[in-house]
Amino acid sequence: MSADKDEDPRMYGIKSRIRVVPDFPKPGIMFQDITTLLLDSKAFKDAIDLFVERYKDRNISVVAGIEARGFIFGPPIALAIGAKFVPLRKPGKLPGEVISEDYVLEYGKDCLQMHIGAVQPEERALVVDDLIATERVGAEVVECACVIELPDLKGRERLKGKPLYVLVESH
Amino acid sequence: MSADKDEDPRMYGIKSRIRVVPDFPKPGIMFQDITTLLLDSKAFKDAIDLFVERYKDRNISVVAGIEARGFIFGPPIALAIGAKFVPLRKPGKLPGEVISEDYVLEYGKDCLQMHIGAVQPEERALVVDDLIATERVGAEVVECACVIELPDLKGRERLKGKPLYVLVESH
Repeated sequence: MSADKDEDPRMYGIKSRIRVVPDFPKPGIMFQDITTLLLDSKAFKDAIDLFVERYKDRNISVVAGIEARGFIFGPPIALAIGAKFVPLRKPGKLPGEVISEDYVLEYGKDCLQMHIGAVQPEERALVVDDLIATERVGAEVVECACVIELPDLKGRERLKGKPLYVLVESH
Repeated sequence: MSADKDEDPRMYGIKSRIRVVPDFPKPGIMFQDITTLLLDSKAFKDAIDLFVERYKDRNISVVAGIEARGFIFGPPIALAIGAKFVPLRKPGKLPGEVISEDYVLEYGKDCLQMHIGAVQPEERALVVDDLIATERVGAEVVECACVIELPDLKGRERLKGKPLYVLVESH
């Protein structure tokens, strides 16, 4: 799954810009900080370009981004491939009628909400976050795209067979 | 300030895509919902393009976006003008050393944090959100850019003379 992009020289710059902060938000957790990637406009653009090159010809009409860091990576991809952007938000933030889905996090449980009607059943969706997560979008999920995967956390197993594309693996 | 863009035909599409939801998040508040704008990829791109056309030759090296909806509009602008993106986050979300600033919201008070060192004093910054707010960035704030202004709330007065650019006024 990652053989092609591992050869891409842009990957080194992206990976080098992700900062690992130990013991955040609590002891024992190695926090993957993508804010340092965003400070390097070239590396940030490279990360977006890698996603866009992968998804531009996949007939994707919906890019769904998970609050809050998925909001940073999702919209530039959506704009570049001509898809709409649908925010998946924490409870109580969306003003319209919503559907909700609980999911498991590294640090506990959480819930995401999406506006009913934002996505039609026949649409093809891409789900974007910085770290991998798992959720239901109400359309065909073509793939889940993340900047970072932490294989030790086995988040991939929670995707129930949905394809996953990651730029960087971190251990 | 808005004479030029009011003539721009793209403005009508943008404005027509913003949904007003009464009594959210509490009675009496007319919530300006930009998620409906994001569902129209053409109108969303038009909004970003209007910002990019305004800021691309202004020597801006930092685009700061306010959590969470400023994360949706800020990164595409930053990528297009070659600036870095700096998230201004709710307390406890950023893993590094931060500076904090309290500010006044339509619905009460809140606090934003920024990583120390993300912005240098000599840099020129653009602050982006969906609705206007007011905050300190630690660099020269060239302008505050928002999708929507609610003039009745007098948020502009809280910017203490910092220039403000808005796409849409709503009453």
